[in-house]
Amino acid sequence: MDERDIKIIKKIAEIGEPSPKAIEEATGIPKSTIHYRLENLREEGIIKDGLFTIDLEKVGLNLTVITEVNAEYSEEYHEEVGQKLSDIEGVNQVYFTAGDTDFIVIAHFASREMVEDLISSYERIDEIERTSTNFVITTIKNERTPFRDFELDTLTDLVDPE
Amino acid sequence: MDERDIKIIKKIAEIGEPSPKAIEEATGIPKSTIHYRLENLREEGIIKDGLFTIDLEKVGLNLTVITEVNAEYSEEYHEEVGQKLSDIEGVNQVYFTAGDTDFIVIAHFASREMVEDLISSYERIDEIERTSTNFVITTIKNERTPFRDFELDTLTDLVDPE
Amino acid sequence: MDERDIKIIKKIAEIGEPSPKAIEEATGIPKSTIHYRLENLREEGIIKDGLFTIDLEKVGLNLTVITEVNAEYSEEYHEEVGQKLSDIEGVNQVYFTAGDTDFIVIAHFASREMVEDLISSYERIDEIERTSTNFVITTIKNERTPFRDFELDTLTDLVDPE
Amino acid sequence: MDERDIKIIKKIAEIGEPSPKAIEEATGIPKSTIHYRLENLREEGIIKDGLFTIDLEKVGLNLTVITEVNAEYSEEYHEEVGQKLSDIEGVNQVYFTAGDTDFIVIAHFASREMVEDLISSYERIDEIERTSTNFVITTIKNERTPFRDFELDTLTDLVDPE
Amino acid sequence: MDERDIKIIKKIAEIGEPSPKAIEEATGIPKSTIHYRLENLREEGIIKDGLFTIDLEKVGLNLTVITEVNAEYSEEYHEEVGQKLSDIEGVNQVYFTAGDTDFIVIAHFASREMVEDLISSYERIDEIERTSTNFVITTIKNERTPFRDFELDTLTDLVDPE
Amino acid sequence: MDERDIKIIKKIAEIGEPSPKAIEEATGIPKSTIHYRLENLREEGIIKDGLFTIDLEKVGLNLTVITEVNAEYSEEYHEEVGQKLSDIEGVNQVYFTAGDTDFIVIAHFASREMVEDLISSYERIDEIERTSTNFVITTIKNERTPFRDFELDTLTDLVDPE
Amino acid sequence: MDERDIKIIKKIAEIGEPSPKAIEEATGIPKSTIHYRLENLREEGIIKDGLFTIDLEKVGLNLTVITEVNAEYSEEYHEEVGQKLSDIEGVNQVYFTAGDTDFIVIAHFASREMVEDLISSYERIDEIERTSTNFVITTIKNERTPFRDFELDTLTDLVDPE
Amino acid sequence: MDERDIKIIKKIAEIGEPSPKAIEEATGIPKSTIHYRLENLREEGIIKDGLFTIDLEKVGLNLTVITEVNAEYSEEYHEEVGQKLSDIEGVNQVYFTAGDTDFIVIAHFASREMVEDLISSYERIDEIERTSTNFVITTIKNERTPFRDFELDTLTDLVDPE
Repeated sequence: MDERDIKIIKKIAEIGEPSPKAIEEATGIPKSTIHYRLENLREEGIIKDGLFTIDLEKVGLNLTVITEVNAEYSEEYHEEVGQKLSDIEGVNQVYFTAGDTDFIVIAHFASREMVEDLISSYERIDEIERTSTNFVITTIKNERTPFRDFELDTLTDLVDPE
Repeated sequence: MDERDIKIIKKIAEIGEPSPKAIEEATGIPKSTIHYRLENLREEGIIKDGLFTIDLEKVGLNLTVITEVNAEYSEEYHEEVGQKLSDIEGVNQVYFTAGDTDFIVIAHFASREMVEDLISSYERIDEIERTSTNFVITTIKNERTPFRDFELDTLTDLVDPE
Repeated sequence: MDERDIKIIKKIAEIGEPSPKAIEEATGIPKSTIHYRLENLREEGIIKDGLFTIDLEKVGLNLTVITEVNAEYSEEYHEEVGQKLSDIEGVNQVYFTAGDTDFIVIAHFASREMVEDLISSYERIDEIERTSTNFVITTIKNERTPFRDFELDTLTDLVDPE
Repeated sequence: MDERDIKIIKKIAEIGEPSPKAIEEATGIPKSTIHYRLENLREEGIIKDGLFTIDLEKVGLNLTVITEVNAEYSEEYHEEVGQKLSDIEGVNQVYFTAGDTDFIVIAHFASREMVEDLISSYERIDEIERTSTNFVITTIKNERTPFRDFELDTLTDLVDPE
Repeated sequence: MDERDIKIIKKIAEIGEPSPKAIEEATGIPKSTIHYRLENLREEGIIKDGLFTIDLEKVGLNLTVITEVNAEYSEEYHEEVGQKLSDIEGVNQVYFTAGDTDFIVIAHFASREMVEDLISSYERIDEIERTSTNFVITTIKNERTPFRDFELDTLTDLVDPE
Repeated sequence: MDERDIKIIKKIAEIGEPSPKAIEEATGIPKSTIHYRLENLREEGIIKDGLFTIDLEKVGLNLTVITEVNAEYSEEYHEEVGQKLSDIEGVNQVYFTAGDTDFIVIAHFASREMVEDLISSYERIDEIERTSTNFVITTIKNERTPFRDFELDTLTDLVDPE
Repeated sequence: MDERDIKIIKKIAEIGEPSPKAIEEATGIPKSTIHYRLENLREEGIIKDGLFTIDLEKVGLNLTVITEVNAEYSEEYHEEVGQKLSDIEGVNQVYFTAGDTDFIVIAHFASREMVEDLISSYERIDEIERTSTNFVITTIKNERTPFRDFELDTLTDLVDPE
Repeated sequence: MDERDIKIIKKIAEIGEPSPKAIEEATGIPKSTIHYRLENLREEGIIKDGLFTIDLEKVGLNLTVITEVNAEYSEEYHEEVGQKLSDIEGVNQVYFTAGDTDFIVIAHFASREMVEDLISSYERIDEIERTSTNFVITTIKNERTPFRDFELDTLTDLVDPE
């Protein structure tokens, strides 16, 4: 992966669709090169064709909650518990952290009853000792295409530090 | 939006690509109907064609941090501060919550130096009073297609509660 | 239940007694309609005839305490523990919450000795792991008729969102 | 107020309505005495005729939140701030406590948007420095007639200690 | 006990010694009355002749520590644990509180090694789950005669409220 | 001060009164020596004749509260704030500590109203930023003669380490 | 720097003195090579000749304290405040961290009075908002030669990951 | 050990190398005396010849973490657990403290993977109940020669108080 690959992917992220023509116009890189390089990136597993992005609010999933989970402290527990947390319906993200809290869980729901089910699911996981679930009032940012979070220069520096 | 739309989108999420043929085979819904309905969902803004999913680890962005941010308490401050947090390079998600902490921020980085820049960026936002940044040891789940987090029945109940 | 029902109940809350005559004067809704509708609301279980409100201070119950209770984390424990908390003498309100604390308990007492009994009662509930009891210095508001907490418009919007 | 008054009020609380006949049967106190004594208690302001109890869930007010509020520390501030908190729409109870938190606020709402309004209302009160709002998952007990929280003996001891 | 008793004891606290003559001069109460009343207060167990007050700093006990102790949560544990805490050498005060912490312990020592012994003593008490020991930098007030903490009026109001 | 002085003071603490005769019997030290040495200790300010110990519960001062106080952080503030805290009526002990909390205050009161006054007094001290007042349920130990907290050997080691 | 350099430095750390002869015997690397390589490491600034290690307990510096410091939140403040903390007498280590606490400070002292001076020094730094100083009961490990904390393999992997 | 010894050691700390000639010039103490006294201090175990100081950043160990460790509360556990913590690779300092946290651990690493190993090592120690690991953003001070942290006067006062 080199600076040119970064430029192509970054441009797709900006214009919002993987159109070789538009990228050629914006970057000067020939369409055939673009096609060839995207093919390689796919094969190396660096990029994967994306699916639809769905507006969760419009299908009624308008409650987001963030839970801090503390679990029993024993060898390698965090893999098992992390997996169990991931399998709960509605759970979208699970992070194992170095700080005060063992896991941070982010989930989406449509009603208070579904949140009650989430808490019951936590209670069924033996290793869990304590949870604290907070409601999100506003989701200010949730960028599904993280390349948009960075400047082009920052990204090209990653593959070509110098 | 009705149960059939949900079935189509859910099936696409499961098989991992929006192929009308595969969906027809799996659901028995004719390809032309699938095409027509996806078109409508796009127009209503419920779905949007997705982009590439990029493997952040492979481009070197292998540090994820979660910051708790407390800010000064004054009218409507949360919109302005939330916007400033969203504009910091590397910041991917920003939530304004009802709990102890005002904002939860999730960001990706490539090095400890970039985390130091993040903390300097926080310091430049006047309204911020305190931050606590924790490192993610393992990202156990981060599902970019949230429809995969739910059972089909749960989703169809949302549009047709009965 | 419609806007008219809300108007009647709200007016009763304001004037402080369910007098059909006073409500007719204030709202222009005929007494017979008021009578008929209150009957229906009673049958549907939406309203229930109230009892006396007793001035707790005057009978010596002038100590209010609020306890945060954390309990053992196991499946469905919150129903059992919640019930045991509700059965302790003097306990008036018990909430199971999503936050750091499992239960919030509000109770009334007449002396420090009764508070000591409360704490002994907590100790007898096996599942309880920790409690923190705070004394209320002043009860600034405790509205026994919650309809008074809202504007009429807010309430009518609930039944007729338009 | 003496033991007999307590007996009458306690019995009304138990049977759920202030019916002199039912109280006479249950306590052996003659109806005329009951009538006379209730009249006196009303005049002394110890009891007040109650209003309807309304099932908040049935009118859509099915979200209860509990907020911990910390406010600026200056002389007598707690009266002013307490009053401002009491005036926010939906706020049902406000307690000024001796513990870590200055105020405990309990409020009822119909939607997440109303909770967002609550938090904006908090932000408009200058003296407030920090709030933490937790959602109630289940209201296990909320006894509008607190006399039901006590044994008869406990209550009679209050007016006649010996 | 009446207002006159309070006046006598309060005056003794002020002048610093139980001299009937000095009290007579200051209060106008005859010496014989003073003598007689002090005798009665002694017999009722309200006052007890005091011992020497010792300047702890001068005998080398110049370290004061305050420990917060949390203990296992089971019926009536606080009496047993409280007793065990009281028996540790150097422990001067033990309070069982209603707040976050179960016990507050105040102790005096002459060296860091003695504090280490204190912590080892805590570890030997099975029911104790957690302790946090803080060092006192300055003892600003420690009034061995608490009557000096109050105005005379406040004290007389206690025995004769009116 | 030497081992013999310690023996005498310790023995007085044990038998509960400074009777030279009883001490002679218990220690074998001649009464005249005891008298002479006590005189010297008084002159050096190591001991001071004590006053009556008063049973606070019996005069109605049966509420003990412990407050954690955090104050503004500026040079030498702790002397001024500590003095102001000491001057509040009912305050018995004030400690400036090295831990999370700036001051620990212990006070005695007769009623909830007096505690409310205490909190108002805190609010009048400008430098105070936050207080948390906890009620003592039981005072398990409060030894007014701290020499009783130690073994004789421990005390003699203080003056004659070897 | 390569694997051989690591081997030499690691061996010096193990045997506790930089004796070329002993290293030659232990590693088989000729003394002249060892001499030559140490010279280069010195020139590149990777190693510096060490000084005496002093047993702090033996010179009376037997108190170690660890302070958590929170400071005002403004741009780049951490460099200035960090410098001021470093300049306080007795302060040995100062870390600026990403967690709840801004700075962790480790210091050595000979008496409680010196700790009181430390706290006064903190109070003189305007930007500091809060400190919490804890006493170390036992220093279990403080390795002045960090190479001893690692296995040889771990260290050689650092320079030659392969 | 006397004032002269302190002067010699302090001067070595300042000039950065134990050169008798330079010390003689700076202090006027004859080289032979310096040599003789250093020899004595070595024999008494007060000083030990130091090793190389290694620049950890240059060998890739550029991550410092500070962990707060809470462990099970039982007699003398802190020695065993403290030893186990000391034996974890990368761990440089281990303190047993009197405050909220049982142990403070400071460790150095080269990558996030090594931090993950550290956390797995914690999980393997049965007695550990909870850990919180924070990343150091900047090491502002880490003085390997603590004599440099003090003024000469402070040090000489330690051996010759007067």
